[in-house]
Amino acid sequence: MEIDEIKEIDKTVKSWLRESRDNVLRKIDTRLTVNTKTSRKDLVTNIDKQNEQFLVSKIRDFDPESRILGEEGFGDKVVSTEGQVWIVDPIDGTMNFVKQRNHFAIMIALYVDGEGVLGYILDVIGNRLLSGGPALGVFDNGHPLAEVVDTPLSNGLIGLSGPLVLHNTFNMVDIAQKSLGMRIYGSAGIDIISVLRGELVGYISYLKPWDFGAGRILCDVAGLEMTTIDGKQLGVLSSEPVLLATRNAHRDILTIVSQ
Amino acid sequence: MEIDEIKEIDKTVKSWLRESRDNVLRKIDTRLTVNTKTSRKDLVTNIDKQNEQFLVSKIRDFDPESRILGEEGFGDKVVSTEGQVWIVDPIDGTMNFVKQRNHFAIMIALYVDGEGVLGYILDVIGNRLLSGGPALGVFDNGHPLAEVVDTPLSNGLIGLSGPLVLHNTFNMVDIAQKSLGMRIYGSAGIDIISVLRGELVGYISYLKPWDFGAGRILCDVAGLEMTTIDGKQLGVLSSEPVLLATRNAHRDILTIVSQ
Repeated sequence: MEIDEIKEIDKTVKSWLRESRDNVLRKIDTRLTVNTKTSRKDLVTNIDKQNEQFLVSKIRDFDPESRILGEEGFGDKVVSTEGQVWIVDPIDGTMNFVKQRNHFAIMIALYVDGEGVLGYILDVIGNRLLSGGPALGVFDNGHPLAEVVDTPLSNGLIGLSGPLVLHNTFNMVDIAQKSLGMRIYGSAGIDIISVLRGELVGYISYLKPWDFGAGRILCDVAGLEMTTIDGKQLGVLSSEPVLLATRNAHRDILTIVSQ
Repeated sequence: MEIDEIKEIDKTVKSWLRESRDNVLRKIDTRLTVNTKTSRKDLVTNIDKQNEQFLVSKIRDFDPESRILGEEGFGDKVVSTEGQVWIVDPIDGTMNFVKQRNHFAIMIALYVDGEGVLGYILDVIGNRLLSGGPALGVFDNGHPLAEVVDTPLSNGLIGLSGPLVLHNTFNMVDIAQKSLGMRIYGSAGIDIISVLRGELVGYISYLKPWDFGAGRILCDVAGLEMTTIDGKQLGVLSSEPVLLATRNAHRDILTIVSQ
């Protein structure tokens, strides 16, 4: 894809995100319709659905040939990464959204033939957008992202998923103890922003394509490692435990996971 | 103490906090001098010390007869709650401050003969001040705090301390599983603000007087329960595991702790 075309898409996606954020904020104090999906801790609201419909319709108008993978199912059934594939998470961290009206994100990614082209993670309440891709670089609210320091696990804070810690899956307790402390924020988007900004040395959670689609592109450009929990390449359409970390912390964590 | 005097103190403390926040933000991108205290995870920086010296000197000028309990030891040796006692935490969440330059708080409390009069928790980066006391009520950035909903544990997110979870002290794992999810933020001040704002249904951590001094006053006025982990009254000068929660969640948690 030509750089001018990428810049044009970037400008367009940012305008959708602004409009999407305004829509969410306008409705944030209204009574939500909350439904459970797979368990009492897996929620979806009318705003998740409305926002996905909004973003899917924007993408369809802009890029009718593409296929769209959305968390709430208003896109297409995407089973291959061929051609232009958009991945949309209309509200990442829905539990935080419902219980806190804070600490949630809107995420969009564009892949072409399986290669990441553009990724967007918007912390809605913090009003912070991490954006970019291999052709543009990574931006933090429009400013080039500060270089990520290659901190080892022992010298950083690690973001973890609550359920993995509670069941000590993959030696999560040992990983937390080797670090300077664990943090649990409850939103992949918020955690990935924190790793990109150097506030966390890594993040481990069971994730789905819409949880990591944008982050996978941004983290790759920023020199971070995002793999499966056993260090293998992470497929664009995979659903599995994901390990994101600085190179040093990634090595430290893989050693503990395999013990 | 007369209401006019309390209002005058409130105005004065807010001016110290503004100046204190400006000082911290001005130095936040400088190289910190970091020292460990009791372990590699217990830190103090030059800014913690400078900020305590700044606040202690402001209090001394304003209220020379009072005694001051400060985390970093620039106040007095306070062993009784007689008379006017100020409690100061110049940087709460020093690990977050050092590793994230985010998610830390400045806290000030005023007790008279053991009774809470005024409390202040300032989220420095979020620029959010929770303030007030029994005579004034509780304010969130100057607006009256929204009424705290008496949510049970099963319908809320719970803030926990990482070490308590990792060692499953006081059945912390069971408490987390009964809730809708645990969050770990790494700063008592940030966690207490989250409970006051209804983003968390409770918070449990081992705390010292400067960690809970301000929160104890604000939470009491807001109708929240802050006690020892076994439900007893929390002494102003105590250092122990503290349970803060809505009344319903407090009851739910005590049942699990005593199992």
